[in-house]
Amino acid sequence: MANYGIPTEFVTRLPENDIADWCLSDLRKYHVGTNHIVRGGDRVGVYFLETGAVARASKVVYNRAHSSMSEIKPGMVDWKKVFKEAHWFHWTGITPAISQGAADACLEAIEMANEMGVTVSTDLNFRKNLWKYGKTAQEVMPVLVEGCDVILGNEEDFEKVFGIKPEGFEVTATGGEVNAGEFESVCIQMMRKFPRAKKVIITLRGSVNANHNTWGGCLYSDRLYLFKRYDITHIVDRVGGGDSFMGSLIYGLLTYPEDDRKALEFATAASCLKHTIYGDFNLVTVAEVENLLKGDGSGCVLR
Amino acid sequence: MANYGIPTEFVTRLPENDIADWCLSDLRKYHVGTNHIVRGGDRVGVYFLETGAVARASKVVYNRAHSSMSEIKPGMVDWKKVFKEAHWFHWTGITPAISQGAADACLEAIEMANEMGVTVSTDLNFRKNLWKYGKTAQEVMPVLVEGCDVILGNEEDFEKVFGIKPEGFEVTATGGEVNAGEFESVCIQMMRKFPRAKKVIITLRGSVNANHNTWGGCLYSDRLYLFKRYDITHIVDRVGGGDSFMGSLIYGLLTYPEDDRKALEFATAASCLKHTIYGDFNLVTVAEVENLLKGDGSGCVLR
Amino acid sequence: MANYGIPTEFVTRLPENDIADWCLSDLRKYHVGTNHIVRGGDRVGVYFLETGAVARASKVVYNRAHSSMSEIKPGMVDWKKVFKEAHWFHWTGITPAISQGAADACLEAIEMANEMGVTVSTDLNFRKNLWKYGKTAQEVMPVLVEGCDVILGNEEDFEKVFGIKPEGFEVTATGGEVNAGEFESVCIQMMRKFPRAKKVIITLRGSVNANHNTWGGCLYSDRLYLFKRYDITHIVDRVGGGDSFMGSLIYGLLTYPEDDRKALEFATAASCLKHTIYGDFNLVTVAEVENLLKGDGSGCVLR
Amino acid sequence: MANYGIPTEFVTRLPENDIADWCLSDLRKYHVGTNHIVRGGDRVGVYFLETGAVARASKVVYNRAHSSMSEIKPGMVDWKKVFKEAHWFHWTGITPAISQGAADACLEAIEMANEMGVTVSTDLNFRKNLWKYGKTAQEVMPVLVEGCDVILGNEEDFEKVFGIKPEGFEVTATGGEVNAGEFESVCIQMMRKFPRAKKVIITLRGSVNANHNTWGGCLYSDRLYLFKRYDITHIVDRVGGGDSFMGSLIYGLLTYPEDDRKALEFATAASCLKHTIYGDFNLVTVAEVENLLKGDGSGCVLR
Amino acid sequence: MANYGIPTEFVTRLPENDIADWCLSDLRKYHVGTNHIVRGGDRVGVYFLETGAVARASKVVYNRAHSSMSEIKPGMVDWKKVFKEAHWFHWTGITPAISQGAADACLEAIEMANEMGVTVSTDLNFRKNLWKYGKTAQEVMPVLVEGCDVILGNEEDFEKVFGIKPEGFEVTATGGEVNAGEFESVCIQMMRKFPRAKKVIITLRGSVNANHNTWGGCLYSDRLYLFKRYDITHIVDRVGGGDSFMGSLIYGLLTYPEDDRKALEFATAASCLKHTIYGDFNLVTVAEVENLLKGDGSGCVLR
Amino acid sequence: MANYGIPTEFVTRLPENDIADWCLSDLRKYHVGTNHIVRGGDRVGVYFLETGAVARASKVVYNRAHSSMSEIKPGMVDWKKVFKEAHWFHWTGITPAISQGAADACLEAIEMANEMGVTVSTDLNFRKNLWKYGKTAQEVMPVLVEGCDVILGNEEDFEKVFGIKPEGFEVTATGGEVNAGEFESVCIQMMRKFPRAKKVIITLRGSVNANHNTWGGCLYSDRLYLFKRYDITHIVDRVGGGDSFMGSLIYGLLTYPEDDRKALEFATAASCLKHTIYGDFNLVTVAEVENLLKGDGSGCVLR
Repeated sequence: MANYGIPTEFVTRLPENDIADWCLSDLRKYHVGTNHIVRGGDRVGVYFLETGAVARASKVVYNRAHSSMSEIKPGMVDWKKVFKEAHWFHWTGITPAISQGAADACLEAIEMANEMGVTVSTDLNFRKNLWKYGKTAQEVMPVLVEGCDVILGNEEDFEKVFGIKPEGFEVTATGGEVNAGEFESVCIQMMRKFPRAKKVIITLRGSVNANHNTWGGCLYSDRLYLFKRYDITHIVDRVGGGDSFMGSLIYGLLTYPEDDRKALEFATAASCLKHTIYGDFNLVTVAEVENLLKGDGSGCVLR
Repeated sequence: MANYGIPTEFVTRLPENDIADWCLSDLRKYHVGTNHIVRGGDRVGVYFLETGAVARASKVVYNRAHSSMSEIKPGMVDWKKVFKEAHWFHWTGITPAISQGAADACLEAIEMANEMGVTVSTDLNFRKNLWKYGKTAQEVMPVLVEGCDVILGNEEDFEKVFGIKPEGFEVTATGGEVNAGEFESVCIQMMRKFPRAKKVIITLRGSVNANHNTWGGCLYSDRLYLFKRYDITHIVDRVGGGDSFMGSLIYGLLTYPEDDRKALEFATAASCLKHTIYGDFNLVTVAEVENLLKGDGSGCVLR
Repeated sequence: MANYGIPTEFVTRLPENDIADWCLSDLRKYHVGTNHIVRGGDRVGVYFLETGAVARASKVVYNRAHSSMSEIKPGMVDWKKVFKEAHWFHWTGITPAISQGAADACLEAIEMANEMGVTVSTDLNFRKNLWKYGKTAQEVMPVLVEGCDVILGNEEDFEKVFGIKPEGFEVTATGGEVNAGEFESVCIQMMRKFPRAKKVIITLRGSVNANHNTWGGCLYSDRLYLFKRYDITHIVDRVGGGDSFMGSLIYGLLTYPEDDRKALEFATAASCLKHTIYGDFNLVTVAEVENLLKGDGSGCVLR
Repeated sequence: MANYGIPTEFVTRLPENDIADWCLSDLRKYHVGTNHIVRGGDRVGVYFLETGAVARASKVVYNRAHSSMSEIKPGMVDWKKVFKEAHWFHWTGITPAISQGAADACLEAIEMANEMGVTVSTDLNFRKNLWKYGKTAQEVMPVLVEGCDVILGNEEDFEKVFGIKPEGFEVTATGGEVNAGEFESVCIQMMRKFPRAKKVIITLRGSVNANHNTWGGCLYSDRLYLFKRYDITHIVDRVGGGDSFMGSLIYGLLTYPEDDRKALEFATAASCLKHTIYGDFNLVTVAEVENLLKGDGSGCVLR
Repeated sequence: MANYGIPTEFVTRLPENDIADWCLSDLRKYHVGTNHIVRGGDRVGVYFLETGAVARASKVVYNRAHSSMSEIKPGMVDWKKVFKEAHWFHWTGITPAISQGAADACLEAIEMANEMGVTVSTDLNFRKNLWKYGKTAQEVMPVLVEGCDVILGNEEDFEKVFGIKPEGFEVTATGGEVNAGEFESVCIQMMRKFPRAKKVIITLRGSVNANHNTWGGCLYSDRLYLFKRYDITHIVDRVGGGDSFMGSLIYGLLTYPEDDRKALEFATAASCLKHTIYGDFNLVTVAEVENLLKGDGSGCVLR
Repeated sequence: MANYGIPTEFVTRLPENDIADWCLSDLRKYHVGTNHIVRGGDRVGVYFLETGAVARASKVVYNRAHSSMSEIKPGMVDWKKVFKEAHWFHWTGITPAISQGAADACLEAIEMANEMGVTVSTDLNFRKNLWKYGKTAQEVMPVLVEGCDVILGNEEDFEKVFGIKPEGFEVTATGGEVNAGEFESVCIQMMRKFPRAKKVIITLRGSVNANHNTWGGCLYSDRLYLFKRYDITHIVDRVGGGDSFMGSLIYGLLTYPEDDRKALEFATAASCLKHTIYGDFNLVTVAEVENLLKGDGSGCVLR
């Protein structure tokens, strides 16, 4: 979002050391605000990524146990101050997965955001290798998601976290393998379970292999919007694909408040482009996304 | 051409500094003659290339304004001396695009080449982001192209520079999406417009995405020769693709003077291989091109 | 094999210098035993590899003439000691290709292995650019292969080395381009020619281009086992593909002694994964191979 | 200064392209404000640096002719707005050296700063390879320097730009090769010539060779303050040494307004440390500078 | 030691993941045994190193809180098995600094080593930024050091951990700045305090700056042996300097059991050479150390 | 020499393969002629270099046994053609050290050069790790050196190859450690032994350590010229130091035929600068050498 010119603040907890200082510099570089980051704790969490290829999967080795963020506790962040000029608060399911304190701080934030009228969104982001502090996603997530206006997940997240599977719908997408009815069913069940939710979004990744994915999404609000799947045949880096979808979706929902279809399309195209960029940050411009939406995925040299 | 053993001289203008000296060394490394390069002016032109992937296009940011070459003027190169032992003079549409002086020097060279009986060829190379000095390609190019014996362009060049589009031909290539008639129409119109031209060549790039292109070409002289499109599924670097086609075509026309089909095939196969090599220079040998022409595109290890 | 936890010893000859010492360190890193490596001679053999792409083939320039290994002579290795606790001896057709001494030492090893009841396997590995010391593969290989219990080659090897081509079989694989009968014919001819052989294995590489291969194999023992071809669309490094097949096959034959089909499948899947790893060593775990055999070639991130 | 936490704005002119955007990101990374940078013109200026060693000098090949900054004109920057909340304006002698427009814009800024009561400082930064637009430093600089409160230069700058050399002083520094009287003479002459100047500072570089320099400085205000020369025996990168001195001096003068000696010492120690950091930015903290000022130049590992 | 051919085993605790597996491979590469490494816990400890230069110190940011090793507990390692064929056990003061469990496990090991007649050595290695679990080095170290036969430290360690400073000795080294009496005093006090100790060794680092150190050592057993300081004028990497001294000292004490002077000299020369090698491992051979001891520090090319 | 603009041809033997082709390209890059290089044999010789630091020596592991050059034989090079337009032939003592054939071809060349009136020079370049084909330098070199007009060596070469040590001279250089008499004695003995020799040159390297050398030279013709030693405190790469001295000396002797002192100074300064350049080629310009000779070794940035 920062990349598209929306003022943003990243709220997290980092230790008092040179590595954390460098993280702040890097965030600033990409226009991400750092005014509400609290300092303390022992260490920056890290993870190791082995990048896969073809049939060999990428592997993540987490090394984030006891990071400053995982040892956050309620009260450490002054959420009232954070939300004072904010319109939107987004959190991800990775936060409550790492520790009880992080889950508690997350709840504290959601409740304050709800109280202060700030829109709340979440990306469920279920990771089975996290959730090791004695509670399960099934126990912890429902109360957090209750406070959300916008809910995003992939097909697995809804089933693994809430046990929600498509019910016996019949409608199918015309002439394709995508079954719109299945997605609609999942979204409707989510909205029944979490009445505050106004929009439910599903990202759809098809893994041909580690270098070749398809990528699309659907959004349910007043009705189901289903956008075409992009064929990403030579992935550069898929880490951050979901995050770039979410950031671009919020941008879309804020920029085209009356046009959920446009927001969905913007998010899908933007995160499709993220797969062609190395690293965690999606560096594309609004113009590049719009160009792809106009149908130009030819990758011809601009000169 | 230098790479295939044909004596060549690169005529340009470079400043008197260490960077330009290094450029000369690099040219020599690849057998390219530097005897007629004139020195003077402020700076070497540079450009920045962001390499695209999949649906994200490569982008060129030109930084060549006021380069030594763009400030060339007629009289700076002694064309009589240059062409004394030359048989062929090739120029590209990028030169007259950068400045009035470069366009004038280009015309001066073409006229002298014509006078001295040196064959002249051009690659139209239309670039919309150049042509900023107050004249358009449409105004400048015709008089230059009038002096040419061999004219190469891609489909866009002919339309954008001369407004030439295929007329209502009916003939189509047997069993394929390639419409030979369209190409033939464009070539014939060009030859009518520029009677000196003996051969018109069109390169045909199909952009599936930034990593995957198809690549072919056709040549019109006594008749239309149309060569198959190669499928380049994992491009390494497409910059220089057109230049390697042109260089290889001249090699082909010189080496097989009676066999335009062979020259076209050689150029197409050679520049197909260029797409697999990083950097501006096509480093393949004649043997490698011949091997591909014999049908071996399997890429099996030679050992 | 070392990578899967099987104790192995690599028997070769290396000079007494720092480069050779470093090779030993690297072997140890990957669990490969170095206890029977003999030291002597002038130099480590090296080769240069130009990595191909799409239609441009990889090229190997050998620089192994007069390496320590090529100047090995019978008597330099104490094979009795080498085989004392060994169950399996594997040699490759590259060894007898480099010099008479290496061929002689190879024969000496095979005879001792036969005498001591050690299983012997070979990968025929025909390389036309080697075999320069005055003898041909056709002259030298038969007596060596006679001592083998397990013989592996690709389709070319059998024809080029032994003149064995498929006879007029009729059986074809159901619904596919693979002709099982042809492979069976080759294997049966090999077993008739070399009665000691209990298993003949053929690796099947289909080269779409340098980045995209198909990869499969078949094994003949009591009957023909034919395993599906993997589609490797974005090869990282195919050097060592055959070696990783052979090492994994021996692992499979030792681990599943009653199940040739399983051994073949393990070898094929393991070496498919090798194509996604840069360098000569196949670093995959048994778990990764099993995962692919279970059908998961999606390359999804494990996190 | 930004690095030490002082709010700063970098005022310059950059073209509208991706390279310039990236420069802005990099500035933000290091806390440097970009709010007053104007966009326009053809290109970002670049230069090439060959890094010297021992007796081989570093060489700069400038490639900044016709950069956006060199084509700045008076009126392009809204200096009133720039200086609205500013306390200090610093400019460098490189700006008026590159073009008449840049010199004019520089004068425009100085006059506005004077009018609005903003302190003005300059680093004379004489570069003989610039100054190519038809005027000399001797002609252009005096009127610009007249508006300055703080003037910094090295020994050469004062002589080459203003013809000021030490007059016949006798005083010498106690027990050392440094001749304080000479410096004092130069400073006093400068203050006589430019009555607005309240402080004149001289940086003192001794070049043993390209890897080994001595580095010190003196400041004249009410009296001469002379600080010891650091011995920098293993330079990492001396580019930006002078700039880091100036930035640190301004920090010092603002932070210790009553203590010119302290400001001088801070500037000298900070820029000494810059010589150990690769790149243009001085990344040291105030604590690191203070540590060196306390006498700890031992470089012992902090752990 | 492993590097010199002495069989060694590295006893530590690592998690069950791919990163830890890679650490094991790397240890094997350098001949270090991994048979007694126990697996468990959450993470591999890491640290970040900013490499200093001249007056800018190197900085270590520890990120080892809650590493597998820091969460070791008595009983996790089967010390009886570890020491079964061992002659020497070395531990470092970093281990008891990281956690109570590590301190307890260290004591458990020392007691078992003492019981089984295994020689015990320690490097005091005081690090003020560790020791954060609630106990001080002063409280924890004495009982551990009581079980040691050989004690190594630098000048600071003895004072900071045991409060031992040189008493009023008069003897001085002939003609130099080194005060042998001071060192002797410290050693004698240590041996009085820890009667089991048979040898006390002090490493002597003089930090001219981060690139230039002097390096020497002294050993006290029956008398004081003091070895010359090497002048290391262009340090490549000083991390691991102390560890390479200790490893080489143990090698020396084992190899020249009657010649403490020789052991000291070997350790000093070997670790001097370590300062010229990038990374944690000292890769020099015995021959290289002996060559330096013979007086050849000229660094002439061997060819 | 090529670097200074003197036409040169490098005569050697290389195999017919891509690696050798690349070597030719690289030579051309640096203006070195390749017209007389003969092709044939098995392999390009290579060597491995471990770069030393401080007290750790650089180590060369030769891997040149049986290279194309080492298997050269008389008759392979058409020396008559080579020397047709040549004025100077230089050979190095490494050539006769590698094989009998190379020694024979060397003699063949020297004799032809003598016959055709081409000046012959040699660099003795004694390398103890070469000379392995059954003859010693003492046996082979005299007949080769007999044909030389100019002889260069370092102090060791004269003693190790010809047993020539300084006789009992008394003269010493004024006020320094350099003993001019010793050098003069060696030169005079050489000229007595090899009457054809008109000039004998000794390079003088003082190895403080691997990073810090002193470097000078003396030349004896009508009298002894002795040039100051440069102090090279931060060597970048000393490989090629001697070769750059020789090349620059020949340039000097050709350019200043009446001024041996100047030639010596040029050679010494040029090769001093070589020590600051990574790789085998000395890339400095005549202007850079002259600048150092004028006394500017300060390494100040040129800008």
